[in-house]
Amino acid sequence: MKVQNLKGFRDFLPKEARKRQYVIDKIRGVFESYGFEPLETPALEYKEILTGKYGEEEKLIYDFKTRGGDEVALRYDQTVPLARVIAQYQNTLPLPFKRYQIQNVWRGENTQKGRYREFLQCDADTVGSSSLVADAEIIRLVLSIYETLGLEVKIKINDRKNFETLDKNIVSAIDKLEKIGESSVLSEMVEKGMNEKDAKKVLSVLSNKPQTKDIKMILQNLEEMGADTSKVIYEPTLARGLDYYTGIIFETVTEGSTSSICSGGRYDNLIRNFTGRQIPAVGFGLGFDRTMEVLEEKNLLPASESGTKVLVSVFSEELGKESIRISNILREKGINTELWIDSQDKLDKQLKYASLKNIPYVLIIGPEEAKNNTATLKNMESGEQKNLSLEGIASELI
Amino acid sequence: MKVQNLKGFRDFLPKEARKRQYVIDKIRGVFESYGFEPLETPALEYKEILTGKYGEEEKLIYDFKTRGGDEVALRYDQTVPLARVIAQYQNTLPLPFKRYQIQNVWRGENTQKGRYREFLQCDADTVGSSSLVADAEIIRLVLSIYETLGLEVKIKINDRKNFETLDKNIVSAIDKLEKIGESSVLSEMVEKGMNEKDAKKVLSVLSNKPQTKDIKMILQNLEEMGADTSKVIYEPTLARGLDYYTGIIFETVTEGSTSSICSGGRYDNLIRNFTGRQIPAVGFGLGFDRTMEVLEEKNLLPASESGTKVLVSVFSEELGKESIRISNILREKGINTELWIDSQDKLDKQLKYASLKNIPYVLIIGPEEAKNNTATLKNMESGEQKNLSLEGIASELI
Repeated sequence: MKVQNLKGFRDFLPKEARKRQYVIDKIRGVFESYGFEPLETPALEYKEILTGKYGEEEKLIYDFKTRGGDEVALRYDQTVPLARVIAQYQNTLPLPFKRYQIQNVWRGENTQKGRYREFLQCDADTVGSSSLVADAEIIRLVLSIYETLGLEVKIKINDRKNFETLDKNIVSAIDKLEKIGESSVLSEMVEKGMNEKDAKKVLSVLSNKPQTKDIKMILQNLEEMGADTSKVIYEPTLARGLDYYTGIIFETVTEGSTSSICSGGRYDNLIRNFTGRQIPAVGFGLGFDRTMEVLEEKNLLPASESGTKVLVSVFSEELGKESIRISNILREKGINTELWIDSQDKLDKQLKYASLKNIPYVLIIGPEEAKNNTATLKNMESGEQKNLSLEGIASELI
Repeated sequence: MKVQNLKGFRDFLPKEARKRQYVIDKIRGVFESYGFEPLETPALEYKEILTGKYGEEEKLIYDFKTRGGDEVALRYDQTVPLARVIAQYQNTLPLPFKRYQIQNVWRGENTQKGRYREFLQCDADTVGSSSLVADAEIIRLVLSIYETLGLEVKIKINDRKNFETLDKNIVSAIDKLEKIGESSVLSEMVEKGMNEKDAKKVLSVLSNKPQTKDIKMILQNLEEMGADTSKVIYEPTLARGLDYYTGIIFETVTEGSTSSICSGGRYDNLIRNFTGRQIPAVGFGLGFDRTMEVLEEKNLLPASESGTKVLVSVFSEELGKESIRISNILREKGINTELWIDSQDKLDKQLKYASLKNIPYVLIIGPEEAKNNTATLKNMESGEQKNLSLEGIASELI
């Protein structure tokens, strides 16, 4: 038996899990400050809900047949399940539906490229409004999240209408401009059937396209929403991979990440696949892992301190009761308190454990302390020890 | 295309998702107050990690072969992945390892019995100590969780050692005592090869078995830990289904639920399957859905109010800017604020939306208000309206 996790899948041990929880809580707080509400959908959907939605990426979907004979697939993104939810509950769900969703998705990616097969996405979408105020608010939300996390970002923005007259193949070639450079894009356009002169002209016209009416309006709204619009950069050659976008599109970049950490746009026709009627929508997906990586790199995560504030050590079996009693009191005061369990373990072992786990304080209750109804509080970072009353300990730790 | 979720799988729309988040946050808080730390493991494991661990329930595992040829299985519980983690990181993970885990598990249950196929479990385990203080702490933790949630529970407790001399088949018959009654249990024992006289005697001896030394010690520890031990009931016929328990076992019951809402015990040999060496452990799994159902029934969940405090309505296109400006200010003051997006919508529609979503306040900024730099705050429950300055609004809403 191979005792290991699957390639592309990860365990999050406490230190890592706590950091992730910290960032999730921050993101959730910003979502809710804008009136977005939580939605959860199942890990498995009927396969046919997912098929025909993701273009050639579809081959990355994890699908299988259950023992009961159902053809099912693991969640691949959160937009298609959202569309399914909108259709399924359309008679009871008030519009606009502003929802956020923070769940794992699964994709059979090539792990040699350092990609994960299970990863967390944080999505926010406004469904049921075609107003550009919704587009602006979605971009404002992205800026607010990264402000809250302390990360400097720029948002590249474009309008799909800039590509209206162009063939899909040509657009996908142009999309690679930043990645592969102008000359490679030109050759790809030629490969795809354009003559070189036309290709050059298309590129030059596109690069110089002025802001569309919608882009201007969104920038104006962003200004009113208190956003720093110098962070929002119009980029007329930005195309985005997915076919379903119909209006504004955007990507979020930051120093230290080569690819976008959060992208989205308006997709007014996708939901029609499920509902039969047009329901406009705009939203984004935030790549949680890429965001975590950049935050880690730039030291924007809290110190990897334990969630536990104090380890109450146990001096001897007889004094174990005293350690238990004091643990109860500290916990009642709202202090996260770990009680050492094995009374025969040496104090050294207990201190080493606290140090390994980055627990900031250890409390020691020896015979002397027990007699005087005090305890010795050891600060694990400075090494300083203080003999304190219970009240003194609590006020030191809160 | 069937636009619906799979049988046994659920969508959690905002109202429901918010209630769940409330309970998860409470449970997490109690786990952390005892120094337990978060762990996350992947949804998929190598199939062989899971096989041979769950007895005849194994047929409920969702397993499949990926396109890459891996035999994989969806997480079925959180104990086996924990054992795998202990083995995989045994050289770096300090023991005792006190971890909690709050993730979904998947089981191909019979949905006609009202069972779900995707459900959330909240587990806590202490790995690496055979001290009975660990057992007591685990039970104390369960009591603390339900105290925090305001739910009255009783914990039935027993010691697997009470069954030491009995055959596995006989134990599983006795386990049904409460469910099917004494006479049915007796017939099952006879079916399984005992003569009736012996069966009766076994049952009578077992029912009258005094508390074991371990049970007594655990109860004493619980007392020291400040637990109300009148809630902990010794039940010498309690057996628990799973084979792997080796010591204390327990189930949590409450009025209004026929089955246990949280159960666990000591399992000192399970982890050896993965590590090759004995590592003792004790823990529990809390059934989140059953707990939610009982909390809902007993009105112990917060009112289904929106997470959004106020909807800032939009009076007209010209006054839209004013609504945006005031939304910014409220948000900066930490008030969860939804801005109405479509300026052409009538106020009536906006009020109806707030009411449907249980948003407690709506702010109205008409021409009069805009001129005087005030706004009208409508309390959606009482219908009361107040004309207030911005400072007045904020202090009303915080």
